[in-house]
Amino acid sequence: MKGTVLYGPHDVRFEERDTPKIEKPTDAIIRISATCVCGSDLWPYRGLQPINEPTPMGHEYCGIVEEVGSAVRLIKPGQFVIGSFATSDNTCPHCRHGYQSSCVNREWMLRAQAPVLRVPLADGTLVATPGVPSDDLIPSLLATSDVMGTGWFAADAADVRPGSTVVVVGDGAVGLLGVLSAKQMGAKRIIAMSRHEPRQRLAREFGATDIVTERGDKGITQIKELTNGIGADAVLECVGTQESMMQAILATRPGGSVGYVGVPHGVELEGEQLFYTHVHLHGGPAPVRRFLPELIDLVWNRKINPGKVFDLTLPLEQVAEGYRAMDERRAIKALLRP
Amino acid sequence: MKGTVLYGPHDVRFEERDTPKIEKPTDAIIRISATCVCGSDLWPYRGLQPINEPTPMGHEYCGIVEEVGSAVRLIKPGQFVIGSFATSDNTCPHCRHGYQSSCVNREWMLRAQAPVLRVPLADGTLVATPGVPSDDLIPSLLATSDVMGTGWFAADAADVRPGSTVVVVGDGAVGLLGVLSAKQMGAKRIIAMSRHEPRQRLAREFGATDIVTERGDKGITQIKELTNGIGADAVLECVGTQESMMQAILATRPGGSVGYVGVPHGVELEGEQLFYTHVHLHGGPAPVRRFLPELIDLVWNRKINPGKVFDLTLPLEQVAEGYRAMDERRAIKALLRP
Repeated sequence: MKGTVLYGPHDVRFEERDTPKIEKPTDAIIRISATCVCGSDLWPYRGLQPINEPTPMGHEYCGIVEEVGSAVRLIKPGQFVIGSFATSDNTCPHCRHGYQSSCVNREWMLRAQAPVLRVPLADGTLVATPGVPSDDLIPSLLATSDVMGTGWFAADAADVRPGSTVVVVGDGAVGLLGVLSAKQMGAKRIIAMSRHEPRQRLAREFGATDIVTERGDKGITQIKELTNGIGADAVLECVGTQESMMQAILATRPGGSVGYVGVPHGVELEGEQLFYTHVHLHGGPAPVRRFLPELIDLVWNRKINPGKVFDLTLPLEQVAEGYRAMDERRAIKALLRP
Repeated sequence: MKGTVLYGPHDVRFEERDTPKIEKPTDAIIRISATCVCGSDLWPYRGLQPINEPTPMGHEYCGIVEEVGSAVRLIKPGQFVIGSFATSDNTCPHCRHGYQSSCVNREWMLRAQAPVLRVPLADGTLVATPGVPSDDLIPSLLATSDVMGTGWFAADAADVRPGSTVVVVGDGAVGLLGVLSAKQMGAKRIIAMSRHEPRQRLAREFGATDIVTERGDKGITQIKELTNGIGADAVLECVGTQESMMQAILATRPGGSVGYVGVPHGVELEGEQLFYTHVHLHGGPAPVRRFLPELIDLVWNRKINPGKVFDLTLPLEQVAEGYRAMDERRAIKALLRP
């Protein structure tokens, strides 16, 4: 088969690789129905997170189980399944506390931008849908694998509740689905920080009530003005830079919460400053496995449509164009079909 | 009257000052029954937090109301009252959310190591006891003014619940009362990090089930060993150094919580490291006013005895000896009686 490999900055290749097969009794092999390019893939693509060797790419996936290892009990061949970018046994103490992305047996998924994928710890990682989905549901189901689960975690970590005033920092796919998540959790007011008109439109469609186009100090001032000088109850940080992190922290009211899911790159928090902001800070790699059953249910019953973040669909062999389009912000998120 | 003034490192003087009087209609004047030296007073005393000019000291206090301003409605002359180190109107949005130490009208109290004290925003800052207390209750009532309220906030911010496994970093008075707070909130296991035998004894008396004497990486390893490799549900950071903060964060299980109340001095948190720990982080200057009614009730009904942290009682005019004894760790906390 052919699969996606990053060779260096702006050098994505779709090239011949071994077709994965069962290696451990807890593995499953799935035939990918759809995969996609993640905002986090752009860090190494842009050379901002150096790689040492050609690296297989992709960690968002859904598809049909082809084969399972001898120790797999719950997942069956023929099922349509979705998994997270972090494998989990779903039985260790961290998993039982709902932090499957810190599972003691965690592996980071790679190699999902390909037609066939090996998933370790299949029983603890994969969740099957009630049946094989109709084709129009595929994008939204794929979204639950990471981008929707991550936006949901941002809202959950920021303790969004019915009636909350919420700010979302970042208008990438995760930020946009953070808006949708906050809406779903009952937020009364959702302020999206975005300067890109098509993304503002989608933010509004997902539930944003206000748009702030300024960033940094000016952005914070605008948030304060919109909230009677108080600040937001809950702020979702969906970028991962020093500027976005401080924007999130300083837009939060004392006692409010920041949920941060943008992988921090070069972020340093000054302890004394953080202390006097009085905010709650929680985040990390989203424990998507915790949320998958609920999110699949919401998608399956057509209560949410997170697949709208895919504004570009390409055949998998054109994966390099998917990276390019997202890098140049021509696309919010590129869906790839083998 | 005479009051306490810090002139520079290790230079505390008890010298003639103007007796405070009502300045604003919302003020109260109280005659101090007891005051004390705070661990945070030691930062400037040791020269680790430079001061620009002779600085009046003291922010923990209780006593009898002598006079109130014309706008004071709730507090009456003759009442025995306790207040926080942060004044609050108790009506602004931050106060209503329970963050009175971020009140929009907040002032930091100073000048409490004196026989008479002016308290701004008296109605929102002071809480009266049910009557004038017997003398043996004074130390524990004084403790609620800051050190007990701060230990309680550490436990509250770390989300201590019935059955929690708790670690307390720091064996100063706040850490010790963090142990007492965790016990009161139903923690099942309380691991105190302390290398000082008399403090270990008091920690055990307050409810500690285990003592860890190691610090840094070795301390973290021991916590992991004591918790089957999992880490603690809740960690109370009661020091404020880089080492203590990282010790707290790395002793917490993924999804667990760090409550930090030691004012950070030179602390820098690396965003990516924090991200992958998956901890909740919350802290700041304790909103003592939120907790005062409950804590006063617990002391008044002799359910808790936080005054035990005072292992040295001095006449107020010997305040300099109180600082010296705490600086040299001869005393955990010095109570001063005018």
